[in-house]
Amino acid sequence: MSQPNEIVTKIVLDNWRGQLAQANDLLNKLTDTDLEKEIAPGKNRGIYLLGHLTAVHDRMLPLLGFGEQKYAHLNDAFLVKADREVNDLPSTSDLREIWKDTNDNLTSHLGKLSADEWMQKHTSVSDEDFAKEPHRNRMNVVVGRTLHLANHLGQLLLLKQK
Amino acid sequence: MSQPNEIVTKIVLDNWRGQLAQANDLLNKLTDTDLEKEIAPGKNRGIYLLGHLTAVHDRMLPLLGFGEQKYAHLNDAFLVKADREVNDLPSTSDLREIWKDTNDNLTSHLGKLSADEWMQKHTSVSDEDFAKEPHRNRMNVVVGRTLHLANHLGQLLLLKQK
Repeated sequence: MSQPNEIVTKIVLDNWRGQLAQANDLLNKLTDTDLEKEIAPGKNRGIYLLGHLTAVHDRMLPLLGFGEQKYAHLNDAFLVKADREVNDLPSTSDLREIWKDTNDNLTSHLGKLSADEWMQKHTSVSDEDFAKEPHRNRMNVVVGRTLHLANHLGQLLLLKQK
Repeated sequence: MSQPNEIVTKIVLDNWRGQLAQANDLLNKLTDTDLEKEIAPGKNRGIYLLGHLTAVHDRMLPLLGFGEQKYAHLNDAFLVKADREVNDLPSTSDLREIWKDTNDNLTSHLGKLSADEWMQKHTSVSDEDFAKEPHRNRMNVVVGRTLHLANHLGQLLLLKQK
Protein backbone atom coordinates (compact mmCIF):
# COMPACT_ATOMS: atom_id res chain seq x y z
CA MET A 1 0.00 0.00 0.00
CA SER A 2 1.39 3.36 -1.05
CA GLN A 3 1.74 6.18 1.41
CA PRO A 4 -0.75 9.06 1.07
CA ASN A 5 1.89 11.52 -0.12
CA GLU A 6 3.07 9.18 -2.82
CA ILE A 7 -0.51 8.78 -3.95
CA VAL A 8 -0.92 12.54 -4.09
CA THR A 9 2.28 13.13 -6.03
CA LYS A 10 1.12 10.48 -8.51
CA ILE A 11 -2.19 12.30 -8.95
CA VAL A 12 -0.47 15.64 -9.56
CA LEU A 13 2.17 14.24 -11.90
CA ASP A 14 -0.33 12.08 -13.82
CA ASN A 15 -2.53 15.11 -14.41
CA TRP A 16 0.42 17.26 -15.51
CA ARG A 17 1.49 14.57 -17.94
CA GLY A 18 -2.11 14.05 -19.05
CA GLN A 19 -2.65 17.69 -20.00
CA LEU A 20 0.68 17.74 -21.83
CA ALA A 21 -0.26 14.57 -23.70
CA GLN A 22 -3.55 16.15 -24.77
CA ALA A 23 -1.72 19.30 -25.87
CA ASN A 24 0.85 17.31 -27.84
CA ASP A 25 -1.82 15.21 -29.47
CA LEU A 26 -3.57 18.38 -30.58
CA LEU A 27 -0.35 20.08 -31.73
CA ASN A 28 0.48 17.03 -33.85
CA LYS A 29 -2.86 17.41 -35.61
CA LEU A 30 -2.59 21.17 -36.14
CA THR A 31 -0.52 22.35 -39.11
CA ASP A 32 1.72 25.41 -38.93
CA THR A 33 -0.98 27.16 -40.95
CA ASP A 34 -3.63 26.19 -38.38
CA LEU A 35 -1.46 27.72 -35.65
CA GLU A 36 -1.29 31.02 -37.56
CA LYS A 37 -5.06 31.38 -37.09
CA GLU A 38 -6.82 33.21 -34.27
CA ILE A 39 -8.62 31.00 -31.76
CA ALA A 40 -11.61 33.34 -32.16
CA PRO A 41 -12.04 36.59 -34.12
CA GLY A 42 -9.74 39.26 -32.67
CA LYS A 43 -8.24 36.93 -30.04
CA ASN A 44 -4.79 35.35 -29.69
CA ARG A 45 -3.34 33.27 -32.49
CA GLY A 46 -2.41 29.64 -31.87
CA ILE A 47 1.27 30.43 -32.35
CA TYR A 48 1.13 33.03 -29.58
CA LEU A 49 -0.45 30.57 -27.14
CA LEU A 50 2.17 27.94 -28.00
CA GLY A 51 4.96 30.46 -27.33
CA HIS A 52 3.25 31.68 -24.18
CA LEU A 53 2.85 28.20 -22.72
CA THR A 54 6.45 27.37 -23.66
CA ALA A 55 7.81 30.46 -21.90
CA VAL A 56 5.68 29.86 -18.80
CA HIS A 57 6.88 26.25 -18.59
CA ASP A 58 10.50 27.27 -19.20
CA ARG A 59 10.26 29.65 -16.26
CA MET A 60 9.11 26.81 -14.04
CA LEU A 61 12.71 25.50 -14.07
CA PRO A 62 14.10 28.26 -11.82
CA LEU A 63 10.84 28.53 -9.88
CA LEU A 64 11.05 24.86 -8.92
CA GLY A 65 14.80 25.00 -8.28
CA PHE A 66 15.72 22.84 -11.28
CA GLY A 67 18.08 25.33 -12.95
CA GLU A 68 18.17 28.40 -15.14
CA GLN A 69 15.53 29.32 -17.67
CA LYS A 70 16.79 28.01 -21.01
CA TYR A 71 14.87 30.07 -23.59
CA ALA A 72 14.68 33.51 -22.00
CA HIS A 73 14.61 35.10 -25.47
CA LEU A 74 10.92 34.08 -25.64
CA ASN A 75 9.88 36.16 -22.65
CA ASP A 76 9.44 39.49 -24.36
CA ALA A 77 7.28 38.27 -27.23
CA PHE A 78 5.19 35.78 -25.27
CA LEU A 79 5.04 36.99 -21.67
CA VAL A 80 5.63 40.75 -21.66
CA LYS A 81 3.95 41.64 -24.93
CA ALA A 82 0.56 40.72 -26.31
CA ASP A 83 0.04 38.87 -29.57
CA ARG A 84 1.05 40.84 -32.70
CA GLU A 85 3.10 43.39 -30.73
CA VAL A 86 6.33 41.67 -31.78
CA ASN A 87 6.99 41.05 -35.46
CA ASP A 88 9.97 38.73 -35.58
CA LEU A 89 8.70 35.67 -33.73
CA PRO A 90 10.61 32.38 -33.83
CA SER A 91 9.42 30.04 -36.58
CA THR A 92 6.60 27.68 -35.68
CA SER A 93 8.92 24.78 -36.35
CA ASP A 94 11.48 26.13 -33.87
CA LEU A 95 8.76 26.79 -31.29
CA ARG A 96 7.50 23.23 -31.58
CA GLU A 97 11.02 21.96 -30.82
CA ILE A 98 11.52 24.32 -27.89
CA TRP A 99 8.10 23.33 -26.50
CA LYS A 100 9.06 19.66 -26.60
CA ASP A 101 12.52 20.20 -25.13
CA THR A 102 11.14 22.37 -22.32
CA ASN A 103 8.46 19.91 -21.27
CA ASP A 104 10.75 16.90 -21.54
CA ASN A 105 13.31 18.60 -19.34
CA LEU A 106 10.77 19.78 -16.79
CA THR A 107 8.85 16.52 -16.60
CA SER A 108 12.07 14.57 -16.20
CA HIS A 109 12.94 16.69 -13.15
CA LEU A 110 9.42 16.31 -11.74
CA GLY A 111 9.53 12.55 -12.16
CA LYS A 112 12.59 12.35 -9.92
CA LEU A 113 11.15 14.29 -6.97
CA SER A 114 10.44 12.37 -3.78
CA ALA A 115 7.16 12.98 -1.97
CA ASP A 116 9.05 15.17 0.52
CA GLU A 117 10.68 17.20 -2.24
CA TRP A 118 7.25 17.98 -3.70
CA MET A 119 6.43 19.59 -0.37
CA GLN A 120 9.49 21.86 -0.39
CA LYS A 121 9.09 25.55 -1.03
CA HIS A 122 9.35 27.06 -4.48
CA THR A 123 12.03 29.68 -5.05
CA SER A 124 9.88 32.80 -5.07
CA VAL A 125 8.69 32.44 -1.48
CA SER A 126 10.94 33.39 1.45
CA ASP A 127 11.81 30.97 4.25
CA GLU A 128 9.88 33.18 6.62
CA ASP A 129 6.71 33.23 4.53
CA PHE A 130 6.98 29.52 3.81
CA ALA A 131 7.05 28.77 7.54
CA LYS A 132 3.66 30.48 7.81
CA GLU A 133 2.26 29.28 4.47
CA PRO A 134 3.59 25.77 3.86
CA HIS A 135 1.25 25.22 0.92
CA ARG A 136 3.46 27.50 -1.19
CA ASN A 137 5.44 24.50 -2.34
CA ARG A 138 6.46 22.85 -5.60
CA MET A 139 3.19 20.94 -5.74
CA ASN A 140 1.18 24.15 -5.69
CA VAL A 141 3.21 25.51 -8.59
CA VAL A 142 2.64 22.39 -10.68
CA VAL A 143 -1.09 22.26 -9.93
CA GLY A 144 -1.40 25.94 -10.87
CA ARG A 145 0.57 25.55 -14.09
CA THR A 146 -1.43 22.45 -15.05
CA LEU A 147 -4.59 24.56 -14.71
CA HIS A 148 -2.98 27.30 -16.78
CA LEU A 149 -2.22 24.75 -19.48
CA ALA A 150 -5.79 23.38 -19.35
CA ASN A 151 -7.13 26.90 -19.73
CA HIS A 152 -5.21 27.62 -22.92
CA LEU A 153 -5.63 24.07 -24.21
CA GLY A 154 -9.39 24.67 -24.19
CA GLN A 155 -8.74 27.64 -26.46
CA LEU A 156 -6.28 25.85 -28.76
CA LEU A 157 -8.84 23.08 -29.28
CA LEU A 158 -10.96 25.62 -31.15
CA LEU A 159 -8.39 25.56 -33.96
CA LYS A 160 -9.13 21.93 -34.67
CA GLN A 161 -11.07 21.22 -37.83
CA LYS A 162 -14.21 19.16 -37.31
CA MET B 1 3.22 23.21 11.33
CA SER B 2 0.60 21.54 9.17
CA GLN B 3 0.88 17.92 8.19
CA PRO B 4 1.69 17.20 4.52
CA ASN B 5 -1.75 15.83 3.75
CA GLU B 6 -3.46 18.87 5.17
CA ILE B 7 -1.21 21.04 3.03
CA VAL B 8 -2.13 19.04 -0.04
CA THR B 9 -5.87 19.16 0.60
CA LYS B 10 -5.55 22.93 1.03
CA ILE B 11 -3.79 23.18 -2.36
CA VAL B 12 -6.48 21.13 -4.09
CA LEU B 13 -9.40 22.90 -2.43
CA ASP B 14 -7.89 26.38 -2.91
CA ASN B 15 -7.45 25.70 -6.61
CA TRP B 16 -10.99 24.34 -6.96
CA ARG B 17 -12.35 27.44 -5.23
CA GLY B 18 -10.03 29.66 -7.26
CA GLN B 19 -11.26 28.38 -10.62
CA LEU B 20 -14.87 28.68 -9.47
CA ALA B 21 -14.23 32.24 -8.30
CA GLN B 22 -12.77 33.12 -11.71
CA ALA B 23 -15.75 31.51 -13.43
CA ASN B 24 -18.22 33.37 -11.24
CA ASP B 25 -16.43 36.65 -11.74
CA LEU B 26 -16.67 36.14 -15.50
CA LEU B 27 -20.32 35.01 -15.38
CA ASN B 28 -21.21 38.13 -13.40
CA LYS B 29 -19.76 40.24 -16.19
CA LEU B 30 -21.41 38.33 -19.04
CA THR B 31 -25.02 39.21 -19.82
CA ASP B 32 -27.57 36.57 -20.80
CA THR B 33 -27.16 37.88 -24.35
CA ASP B 34 -23.39 37.34 -24.18
CA LEU B 35 -24.00 33.75 -23.11
CA GLU B 36 -26.20 33.15 -26.16
CA LYS B 37 -23.14 33.74 -28.36
CA GLU B 38 -20.78 31.09 -29.69
CA ILE B 39 -17.31 31.09 -28.15
CA ALA B 40 -15.94 30.93 -31.71
CA PRO B 41 -17.72 30.57 -35.09
CA GLY B 42 -19.48 27.21 -35.27
CA LYS B 43 -18.44 26.18 -31.73
CA ASN B 44 -20.43 25.79 -28.50
CA ARG B 45 -22.47 28.67 -27.14
CA GLY B 46 -21.73 30.08 -23.70
CA ILE B 47 -25.07 28.83 -22.40
CA TYR B 48 -24.21 25.28 -23.42
CA LEU B 49 -20.89 25.41 -21.59
CA LEU B 50 -22.58 26.80 -18.48
CA GLY B 51 -25.11 23.96 -18.55
CA HIS B 52 -22.41 21.39 -19.29
CA LEU B 53 -20.23 22.50 -16.37
CA THR B 54 -23.27 22.58 -14.09
CA ALA B 55 -24.28 19.03 -14.99
CA VAL B 56 -20.72 17.72 -14.60
CA HIS B 57 -20.43 19.33 -11.17
CA ASP B 58 -23.87 18.08 -10.13
CA ARG B 59 -22.77 14.54 -10.96
CA MET B 60 -19.78 14.92 -8.69
CA LEU B 61 -22.16 14.62 -5.72
CA PRO B 62 -22.82 10.87 -6.18
CA LEU B 63 -19.31 10.27 -7.52
CA LEU B 64 -17.81 11.67 -4.32
CA GLY B 65 -20.38 9.95 -2.09
CA PHE B 66 -22.12 13.18 -1.04
CA GLY B 67 -25.63 12.22 -2.18
CA GLU B 68 -27.86 12.01 -5.22
CA GLN B 69 -27.53 14.16 -8.29
CA LYS B 70 -29.96 17.05 -7.83
CA TYR B 71 -30.54 18.35 -11.37
CA ALA B 72 -30.56 15.18 -13.47
CA HIS B 73 -32.94 16.85 -15.95
CA LEU B 74 -29.87 18.71 -17.31
CA ASN B 75 -28.03 15.56 -18.37
CA ASP B 76 -29.68 15.01 -21.70
CA ALA B 77 -29.24 18.53 -23.05
CA PHE B 78 -25.78 19.19 -21.65
CA LEU B 79 -24.01 15.83 -21.33
CA VAL B 80 -25.60 13.42 -23.79
CA LYS B 81 -26.43 15.85 -26.58
CA ALA B 82 -24.30 18.46 -28.29
CA ASP B 83 -25.15 22.14 -28.38
CA ARG B 84 -28.30 23.00 -30.43
CA GLU B 85 -29.55 19.40 -30.45
CA VAL B 86 -32.10 20.20 -27.74
CA ASN B 87 -34.48 23.11 -28.24
CA ASP B 88 -36.14 23.65 -24.88
CA LEU B 89 -33.19 24.49 -22.67
CA PRO B 90 -33.71 25.93 -19.19
CA SER B 91 -33.60 29.72 -19.11
CA THR B 92 -30.20 31.31 -18.60
CA SER B 93 -31.47 32.82 -15.38
CA ASP B 94 -32.47 29.37 -14.05
CA LEU B 95 -29.14 27.91 -15.13
CA ARG B 96 -27.26 30.62 -13.29
CA GLU B 97 -29.15 29.71 -10.10
CA ILE B 98 -28.61 25.98 -10.51
CA TRP B 99 -24.90 26.59 -11.19
CA LYS B 100 -24.58 28.54 -7.95
CA ASP B 101 -26.57 26.05 -5.88
CA THR B 102 -24.61 23.10 -7.24
CA ASN B 103 -21.21 24.60 -6.53
CA ASP B 104 -22.21 25.89 -3.10
CA ASN B 105 -23.47 22.45 -2.15
CA LEU B 106 -20.44 20.62 -3.53
CA THR B 107 -17.86 23.00 -2.10
CA SER B 108 -19.53 22.87 1.30
CA HIS B 109 -19.14 19.08 1.31
CA LEU B 110 -15.52 19.33 0.14
CA GLY B 111 -14.70 21.85 2.85
CA LYS B 112 -15.74 19.36 5.52
CA LEU B 113 -13.58 16.44 4.34
CA SER B 114 -10.67 15.42 6.54
CA ALA B 115 -7.32 14.71 4.91
CA ASP B 116 -8.05 10.98 5.24
CA GLU B 117 -11.47 11.35 3.62
CA TRP B 118 -9.89 13.03 0.60
CA MET B 119 -7.87 9.84 0.15
CA GLN B 120 -10.93 7.56 0.16
CA LYS B 121 -12.11 5.98 -3.05
CA HIS B 122 -14.70 7.57 -5.29
CA THR B 123 -17.88 5.63 -5.95
CA SER B 124 -17.17 4.45 -9.48
CA VAL B 125 -14.16 2.36 -8.57
CA SER B 126 -14.53 -1.09 -6.97
CA ASP B 127 -12.89 -2.02 -3.65
CA GLU B 128 -10.76 -4.50 -5.53
CA ASP B 129 -9.49 -2.00 -8.09
CA PHE B 130 -8.97 0.66 -5.44
CA ALA B 131 -6.72 -1.69 -3.49
CA LYS B 132 -4.46 -1.88 -6.54
CA GLU B 133 -4.90 1.76 -7.64
CA PRO B 134 -5.20 3.88 -4.49
CA HIS B 135 -4.86 7.11 -6.47
CA ARG B 136 -8.45 6.68 -7.70
CA ASN B 137 -9.70 8.69 -4.79
CA ARG B 138 -11.80 11.79 -4.17
CA MET B 139 -8.79 14.04 -4.61
CA ASN B 140 -8.19 12.70 -8.11
CA VAL B 141 -11.79 13.44 -9.05
CA VAL B 142 -11.57 17.02 -7.80
CA VAL B 143 -8.23 17.68 -9.51
CA GLY B 144 -9.64 16.29 -12.76
CA ARG B 145 -12.84 18.33 -12.54
CA THR B 146 -10.89 21.49 -11.69
CA LEU B 147 -8.90 20.95 -14.91
CA HIS B 148 -12.15 20.38 -16.79
CA LEU B 149 -13.46 23.68 -15.45
CA ALA B 150 -10.22 25.48 -16.38
CA ASN B 151 -10.47 24.08 -19.89
CA HIS B 152 -13.96 25.46 -20.51
CA LEU B 153 -13.27 28.65 -18.58
CA GLY B 154 -10.54 29.43 -21.11
CA GLN B 155 -13.23 29.17 -23.78
CA LEU B 156 -15.86 31.19 -21.91
CA LEU B 157 -13.32 33.99 -21.46
CA LEU B 158 -13.51 34.54 -25.22
CA LEU B 159 -17.06 35.88 -24.75
CA LYS B 160 -15.76 38.80 -22.72
CA GLN B 161 -15.82 42.16 -24.44
CA LYS B 162 -12.48 43.97 -24.47
